[in-house]
Parts: sequence; structure tokens; C-alpha cells
Amino acid sequence: MTADIITIGDELLIGQVVNTNAAWIAQKLNLYGFKVNRMITVPDSKQEILNAFDESKERSNIVIITGGLGPTSDDITKPVMCEYFNTSLRLDEEVYKHVEAIIKSVGGIMNELNKSQAKVPAACKVLFNSIGTAPGMWFEKDNTIFVSLPGVPFEMEKLMTEQVLPELKSRFNIANIFHRTIITQGIGESMLAERIAGWEKKLHNEVKIAYLPSPGIVKIRLSVYGNSDGKKLIADEEAKLITIISDYIFGFDNDTPESVLGKILTEKRKTVSTAESCTGGNISRLITSVSGSSEYYIGSIVAYSNELKIKDLNVEAKDIEQYGAVSQQVVEAMALGAIKKFNTDFSIAVSGVAGPTGGTVEKPVGTVWIAVASKSKVVSNKFSFGTDRDRVVSRASITALNMMRKLVLATH
Amino acid sequence: MTADIITIGDELLIGQVVNTNAAWIAQKLNLYGFKVNRMITVPDSKQEILNAFDESKERSNIVIITGGLGPTSDDITKPVMCEYFNTSLRLDEEVYKHVEAIIKSVGGIMNELNKSQAKVPAACKVLFNSIGTAPGMWFEKDNTIFVSLPGVPFEMEKLMTEQVLPELKSRFNIANIFHRTIITQGIGESMLAERIAGWEKKLHNEVKIAYLPSPGIVKIRLSVYGNSDGKKLIADEEAKLITIISDYIFGFDNDTPESVLGKILTEKRKTVSTAESCTGGNISRLITSVSGSSEYYIGSIVAYSNELKIKDLNVEAKDIEQYGAVSQQVVEAMALGAIKKFNTDFSIAVSGVAGPTGGTVEKPVGTVWIAVASKSKVVSNKFSFGTDRDRVVSRASITALNMMRKLVLATH
Repeated sequence: MTADIITIGDELLIGQVVNTNAAWIAQKLNLYGFKVNRMITVPDSKQEILNAFDESKERSNIVIITGGLGPTSDDITKPVMCEYFNTSLRLDEEVYKHVEAIIKSVGGIMNELNKSQAKVPAACKVLFNSIGTAPGMWFEKDNTIFVSLPGVPFEMEKLMTEQVLPELKSRFNIANIFHRTIITQGIGESMLAERIAGWEKKLHNEVKIAYLPSPGIVKIRLSVYGNSDGKKLIADEEAKLITIISDYIFGFDNDTPESVLGKILTEKRKTVSTAESCTGGNISRLITSVSGSSEYYIGSIVAYSNELKIKDLNVEAKDIEQYGAVSQQVVEAMALGAIKKFNTDFSIAVSGVAGPTGGTVEKPVGTVWIAVASKSKVVSNKFSFGTDRDRVVSRASITALNMMRKLVLATH
Repeated sequence: MTADIITIGDELLIGQVVNTNAAWIAQKLNLYGFKVNRMITVPDSKQEILNAFDESKERSNIVIITGGLGPTSDDITKPVMCEYFNTSLRLDEEVYKHVEAIIKSVGGIMNELNKSQAKVPAACKVLFNSIGTAPGMWFEKDNTIFVSLPGVPFEMEKLMTEQVLPELKSRFNIANIFHRTIITQGIGESMLAERIAGWEKKLHNEVKIAYLPSPGIVKIRLSVYGNSDGKKLIADEEAKLITIISDYIFGFDNDTPESVLGKILTEKRKTVSTAESCTGGNISRLITSVSGSSEYYIGSIVAYSNELKIKDLNVEAKDIEQYGAVSQQVVEAMALGAIKKFNTDFSIAVSGVAGPTGGTVEKPVGTVWIAVASKSKVVSNKFSFGTDRDRVVSRASITALNMMRKLVLATH
């Protein structure tokens, strides 16, 4: 069972929009046992779309298509579909009523553009879109299934989850595909590969390994295709792997530094607060992106100015003067100040030079001090996170969350 | 002058990594006058990679390839390159010394994996990678240029910017491709399309239009291909367009709500602070993502708890009791409290129900109150931002930044 994913849109090919849909669809198809052969992005051009359809039909059992279903003139997927499946547009009454209701609810009136959203190729099964105006469409041709979905991510996701995937599941037998991802922090890809080289050499020949590096994190993914014992094969290898790199592992599969920290804090019924300088609220944003974080997250102060560090976090003015705002003394004081201010069990504090300006010889761009504190202990470390502003913020945030995780685990 | 972009990696096809590289490369190629015909993502499989090379060679003048150049066993791009270009690997002395220096700087020693990074196909021109261990490679075959780059985004970006694009520029004549993007906030795609339908009908036939919707924002892109007067053609249409939708336009091209707000605050020499509840630090993160924001951004309090709203922002306990934390009274008090606490000219405050829990009949998930304040004025509004947590945070943040922009502009 194989799949191709075709994303349609000039905006993708000029790079104005990042293709998150393809990744999301691939992830879901994988869980359902489909192997994605290829992802293809083509422009809003009839011939290019038709070519891609033909090629994908040769390669895969199912073809998921997104984009080009909007009401505006650059959206041509529907007429192209009609040509490819040798059919014509018809007005769908149910979709029409739904579109009309949506338009009216925002105080609009039905115009020709909105009305065109209710037209669908006669040859397709309509996938009703309860949260948007563009319905999905299900076609079949020469034993290949073509599914066309709107490009708006949350509409596409809802249609996939509620209609496309259940239908695919009922139509195909799910093969034995297993994945397990082990997530590390604080060690580079080469170092990690070297450290586990002996284990990798002896890896079971049906277990495939992949390294997935991103700023601050390296994931190791183990996969087995087409073996019903896959889960056990992977579990055996994972158990061996963990003994070699346990220091660096913070989670598995879809875990994130913030979700793992959240889980531990919830279990221990402890609270945390943050005091951020160069990360500018990013750690707070990550912590609060976890549903249920209000149980353990009290609040944050983003203290860009020294004045605020002194006033709100009880940092000593003389420490800032003597050591600078980016220093062990100041970041530890910030952490302790946050615990006191927010009355939490734990706190995270960061102070650094995110760049591109503000660097000195002694403290170049990328220098970041991170402190994590409990009521009785402060741990701090200095890092160099490179020269790219976004990357500095991202790596500092991930590192800080993982340092906090370790201190919470070590605190009784 | 046309281009294909091939991204290689199993991690992309199982959806574990979002393909940001393709968008980044496409954007740059576009600026240099290359039209991207297609983006293709293939697995770490020799045959699939070779097939993609063959197809892209038929379609485009240049083929940019990323991924599969790491030191680990799943990275096979280099041997595949050798096969495709009928060549073999050689050890590059300069790259070897560089890799060795990088490994030593992080306290490592040269192992076989690292050493393999210094091996390059004999037939290629090496693109020296000063910030990573995998060099880029430049090949030519039957008048098509193939460039292979590492998959790590910031390494790929640096090689593109400093070596690939300048070389392409010197080899090709840049065609006349012009783009202009007009960015709106606070109006949906259909409504916008309807409002400008009359203008669109009379649009110059060489000016192409595209709508690019994302949460809270709709961009309108105008493009002209292959006409040296393109800039003027677009400017004329843009001038007419602006008169129709000026209320909704907050910026152009690469502007973001946070960059535009920053520009205005810098010009006016005014400062801003934030008091966030449901957005959890996201507005602060956006503001501080702009280089130079320390000039106008003082700080933020993320007040997840009511206690903190009362203590730090002078919100009246009785207002929270009577109206709830998600209310006009409380969000306006938060905004005024932030101005006072941080001693800024302006402030942004947000309080809402991000979900998935916490909703009530009266205030369902997605209900968000936003207030923006100057020293003499508070403007507040209630919004419904749907039921997806990330989307609620994202739309609330964008809307708040745009409300702040308007108030700053209206303040003398």
C-alpha cells in the first residue's frame, strides 16, 4: 500500500508558504500503514497538475492532493479534476446550504465566488467540510484512489481524520509498519553516531535506523516494515540503545521538551515559572503550548531591561554592573527571583546575546547563560549557540527545558 | 531559466520533518529570476533518487538537491551522486582539515564517520561549508546544473547565499520577474476577493494574482513574468488596489505584524509592553524575534493565574469575580496595569480561552478579549478564534499586534 502526496499552488513554488500539509498527511498515512513514495509540489497550471496525476497513478495506490480549491481565480483544481476524470461540475445542494450558512454567519451575502464553492465534479464522492466552504472530493480511476482536499491546514486535517483515513482503513488491510523514535538532547549527530556505532553494527537486519537532527535535538528513529514482530524487534533494540545513551534521552516518539517537563511536573504536583531575557517569551510560549499547562505553570516575566531584572526579580544592581547581564551571577539571581516572585517550586532563567548585535569579544553573539532552580538548589551553565538569532533562541529554550526536567527529576 | 528542487530523506516522507528547505530555496531562486517547476521529495533510496534526477534533468536548467549528506548510514546521496555522474569518491584535504578542526573544537576525535565527511565525488566542484562538516557539491551534466547541499537548514542557507546564488547569477541572465505582496489582516479570503472583484476584472493581463491565506492573514501577490516594465505594471495595479482595501492592509512583501509595529515604534521613539494570559508569551516572542526590538520593547508579564493579574497588573479582584478573567473589564485593566508596571507608552493585553478545555456556554473555547492601550486611551475587542489551541494563540497574537499598530499610528 503506497501513496503519493501532491500539493498544488504557485505560492509553494515561489516559497511564500512552507508545505506543512505534506508532512502532516505523510505522518498520518504512515500510522495507517501506507508508505509514501513521493511528495510532489506543482504550480496552479493545468498541464503540470495533469502530468503529476498521471505519474502518481503509475507509482501509488492512493494519491492525496491538497490546494487549489479556494473560491478565487487562481484556484483551478476542480476544473482540472473534471478534465482528468472526464466529468463536469454540478451544484451540490447540501454544500450550498452550508456555504450559505457560513457566509451569513459572518454577515456576508452569497456571491458568485461563494456559490462556486458548492459546485463539485459529478464523478466524485463529496467529503463534506463542516468547518470550511471547500468540500473534499474522492475519485477512483483504474484502481487508484485520488482524494482532493482544501489547502487550509485545519480543514484538510479534519477531513483526513474524520473521513479519508477511516475510509482508507476500511478499504485496505493495514501492513505491519512500526516506528519508534528515541529523542536526545545535548549531543551532536556525529558524536551520537559514534557512541552507538557498536550497537548499530549489530542491529537486527530488519530494523532500519535514521538520524533526524534539528537545532538542539537529535532523534533516532527505528523502523520495521512488513514484519508482524516489528514491535518486539524494535523494543529489543531500543532497550540496548537506552543503556548506551540514557544521559541524553529525554523522550520518545512525539514527546517534546515542554511536554515531558509538563508530564513530570503534573505527576509531582509541582509548579514552575520562568524569567526570560534573550529568549523573549519563547520558553513561556513552549510551556503554555501544552494543553493543561495551567496546572503547573504560574507565569513568566520577560525582562528585556536591566531595570526590570532589578525591580521584579531582585537581581542586585551591583552584580549587573560587575559581571554584566549575561553572567552566572545574574542568571542565578533571576532564577531565584522568579521562584520568590511567582511562589513556584521551580524556575527557569535565561540571559544571553541572541544577536545579531550586542556581542563583545568576551561574550560573542550566541553566548547564553541558563539557570534552573528549585527552592534549595540552583544549577547554571554557559553555552555557545551560534550566530543565528532564531537558532540561539530555539536552542537556548530547548536546553533550558531539558535542564529543568533533569533538576525536577533529581528533586525529592 | 527553470529549476527543480529535490529534497531527499525518509524523515520527510514519514512526515517527521517539515520541508522548510524547499520553500527557502524556492524563495531565493525566484528572486534571482528562476521559475521553480516542481518540488520533489524522495526517500533515502538509490533508485528513487536516480529517477528524480533523470526527470528533473528533462524539466529544468538547474536542480537543487538537499539532504542525505550526513555522516550516518542512512545518508546515501554521495554514493548515488558518484553513480549518476560516473565518478568516485576522493578525500578532500581542505575539507578534512576543516572537519577535524570542528570535531576537535567540541572535544571529539576523528573517527571513520567524520572522516567520510571529507570524501567528495571527484567530478564535482566542492562548495566549502565553513559552518558544518558536509560540503556542498556542484555538478554539470548535459547542460543541466546539479547542486547538492546539506539538509541542515542554516548550513544549506549559507552555502546557497554565499556560493550557489552568486555563481548562478554570473552564469545566467536574470529574466524580468517581479512580485509584490500586499498583506491584509482582519478580512477573510472570500470577502476580500469579493471586495476587489471589480479591480481584479480590469487587472492588466500580464499581472497575475494569487491569494495566500494563513491564520489571521490574507496576502495578495501580484506577479509579472518576462516583461521589463513589470515593476511599473504592478505598481499601477497596487495603487488602485490600496484605495479599495486600505483599512485592512498592514504591510507589504516580507513584512510581519511584529516587524511593522517595530518599525513604527522605532520611528516614533515609543515603547511597548505586554500582559499575556492565553497567548502564553507568544506575543512577546514575536515582538522580540525582530532584531533591534530591545529599543522599544521593555518586557512582559505572562499572567496565567488570577493572583498574578491582581498582584502584578493591578486588576481588581472583584472584576475577576464579577466578570471573569476573560472579560473586557479585566483585559483593559491588564493593559493599563502593564503600562504602569513597565512604564511604557503603549501596551498589549490578552485574555482568552485557548482550549481545548476551559470553555463555557457563555465563553466557548476560542473566545479572546484583546486590549491595546496608550497612556490616555484603551481600545478593546472580543473575538472568536475557533477551537484549535495553536490557531487561537496565533490568530490572537496577530490580531493584537495589528490593533496595537493602529493605536500607535493614531496616537500623536
